Amino acid sequence: MTGTTMTTPVTDAEIFEGHEGGKLSVAATRPISSPRDLSVAYTPGVAKVSLAIAEDAAKAKRYTWADRLVVVVSDGTAVLGLGDIGASASLPVMEGKSVLFKTFGGLDSIPLVLDTTDVDEIIETLVRLRPSFGAVNLEDISAPRCFELEDRLKEALDCPVMHDDQHGTAIVTLAALRGANQVLGKDISGQRVVVSGAGAAGVACARILQNAGVADVTVLDSRGIIHEGREGLNPIKQKLAETTNTSGLRGGLGEALKGADVFLGLSGATIDETLLAGMSDDAIVFALSNPDPEVHPAAASRYAKIVATGRSDFPNQINNVLAFPGVFRGALDSGARAITENMKLAAADAIFSVAQDDLGPDRIVPSPLDPRVAPEVAAAVAKAAEADGVV
Amino acid sequence: MTGTTMTTPVTDAEIFEGHEGGKLSVAATRPISSPRDLSVAYTPGVAKVSLAIAEDAAKAKRYTWADRLVVVVSDGTAVLGLGDIGASASLPVMEGKSVLFKTFGGLDSIPLVLDTTDVDEIIETLVRLRPSFGAVNLEDISAPRCFELEDRLKEALDCPVMHDDQHGTAIVTLAALRGANQVLGKDISGQRVVVSGAGAAGVACARILQNAGVADVTVLDSRGIIHEGREGLNPIKQKLAETTNTSGLRGGLGEALKGADVFLGLSGATIDETLLAGMSDDAIVFALSNPDPEVHPAAASRYAKIVATGRSDFPNQINNVLAFPGVFRGALDSGARAITENMKLAAADAIFSVAQDDLGPDRIVPSPLDPRVAPEVAAAVAKAAEADGVV
Repeated sequence: MTGTTMTTPVTDAEIFEGHEGGKLSVAATRPISSPRDLSVAYTPGVAKVSLAIAEDAAKAKRYTWADRLVVVVSDGTAVLGLGDIGASASLPVMEGKSVLFKTFGGLDSIPLVLDTTDVDEIIETLVRLRPSFGAVNLEDISAPRCFELEDRLKEALDCPVMHDDQHGTAIVTLAALRGANQVLGKDISGQRVVVSGAGAAGVACARILQNAGVADVTVLDSRGIIHEGREGLNPIKQKLAETTNTSGLRGGLGEALKGADVFLGLSGATIDETLLAGMSDDAIVFALSNPDPEVHPAAASRYAKIVATGRSDFPNQINNVLAFPGVFRGALDSGARAITENMKLAAADAIFSVAQDDLGPDRIVPSPLDPRVAPEVAAAVAKAAEADGVV
Repeated sequence: MTGTTMTTPVTDAEIFEGHEGGKLSVAATRPISSPRDLSVAYTPGVAKVSLAIAEDAAKAKRYTWADRLVVVVSDGTAVLGLGDIGASASLPVMEGKSVLFKTFGGLDSIPLVLDTTDVDEIIETLVRLRPSFGAVNLEDISAPRCFELEDRLKEALDCPVMHDDQHGTAIVTLAALRGANQVLGKDISGQRVVVSGAGAAGVACARILQNAGVADVTVLDSRGIIHEGREGLNPIKQKLAETTNTSGLRGGLGEALKGADVFLGLSGATIDETLLAGMSDDAIVFALSNPDPEVHPAAASRYAKIVATGRSDFPNQINNVLAFPGVFRGALDSGARAITENMKLAAADAIFSVAQDDLGPDRIVPSPLDPRVAPEVAAAVAKAAEADGVV
């Protein structure tokens, strides 16, 4: 059995104690301990710096924190697998992201949670705040609004913008699929992948897998397989219908999984484990919903050679933390104005490469704590940004 | 001569080196060094905290940083004495404020600089961001917009809001005037005070001095003494005209200063030092414009017994840093929903009290580095908040 050894679960007491007072603080990069320190950092010194920026806007990059600051933005509409629980309730997650940005990417970031779910208003707010930050990490925003929001925000802002639930998940999933295939001695291009869930993560995963050369991807939403001719599809799903499901499947998860090589759970709903029985012999199951996987790893391992989840307390944690700190670090280090498809593919390859020599059924991705990951991802992303001419 | 011993000026090299990369960073309150740490701070643990807040909004106060976070907000329209230099150019000043909030008040804060100068849009932006923070420090926003902005923002938000250029300056000026008067053996209530400048600071200083019992305050703008019957006064100045200048003075600074006890410079413009010659024998000159005082302290000391500026490199620094860290600390510690007039008066008294036993012509206020100030101010402000019933 693979992917089933759970560590002792964290207790509620541990969790709430670990959140008391919040998880973030702000620090000064230089101490203020003398009148001279005050004269430099505050008045009269700071006036010189302000004037220098007023005369040459590019100097803000050098003499303020804005250009290395990531804002983690949420409206609380799709928090983890918990749904629309509101901005305040989403804040602990956003603080957690900021902690991870700092810990793994060495990046400063702040959570901005919004008491509006209107796409126009979110964009307007960030456009107004533009001089305050250097990049935007969108987070836990419900589909299909998240697609329009990201697209329009990228148009509106001249800085890296990434909806992590889409692209962070997609990057790490691709890296993990490369890892799993290396363990199995297979190649992803010939595999049949079933993506359960057509929300933010499902759509982005389907896309990156296609961009990485997987020919046969089938996506399901709560109504079943997405196929051309199905009625009532929104524009995002319509596009999926046109570009996926090359075998022309119809029906539900059972039909989709028959003979499939990979199950990718991104739905937030649990599934009947016996459906996995129809998969191919070398099946791979990624049950990524948080906090509750679509199928328990112990059950999944009865049907699959490789099992992974999104949780920290099981092996094979497929978690965005492997991607976003390095992706934003690479984008900001290179001065990229955007995050391109090639930058995402480069990030996935870098994550896979780090652990390539040490893979196993319970080690298809590096540990989220592996200190090599973020620097490797950052370097690969920066290189791709230059190659793509967005620097 | 008093108030004239300047320390060696800071050099441009020192200033720019002290700003390289910005002055702020974000830190995690607890390290992430094990899978267990990740399980607590991120997934799956954080879901429990988010759900707890979704069920009981009051828990956000306890388990996020928002309730102890001050946002330092500017649109860059009145930066120091430099004027409308824009949001990006104002950012080094806002970062400086955040450094001081942390250093002296132990408070976390972040600068949010806005690419809009529209009062409606600034309010709308902060209302949308409300779940992200616990208090608003408005900064470097031009008059008379700043008055309307502060008033309306206080209506719109259920948390402490203070425009520091108004009230921070007013609080510290009142404290300094109490200190100067103790040194001179005088009482402020009988003094004639001339306020040069009817911007944010001038208006707030006139008000707090009146609230503290100064009967004779005269305010000037760039067109001279503000008096009833002067044409073209905006509503703010019209109110000043009705409540100040009890002697019915007309004319310019020369007329206003004849026989005056206190000159309070808050205009951003330099003055002809000989005008000070007409003041009373025990004259007090506070030349507070930054970075360039209205009159050089060496010149002012020829006419005045007590001289003060806003700068860190002269004695008697009358600087908001004596007020705002303690004021916000006290407001947040007490859970105040607003900052009242009594809280401001209490803050001024606390600043004065700290240094009361050790005053001299060059020590009319405590040093900005005095670690006793912020806690004393915080305690006094919290007490006043409770007395005023805003807790």
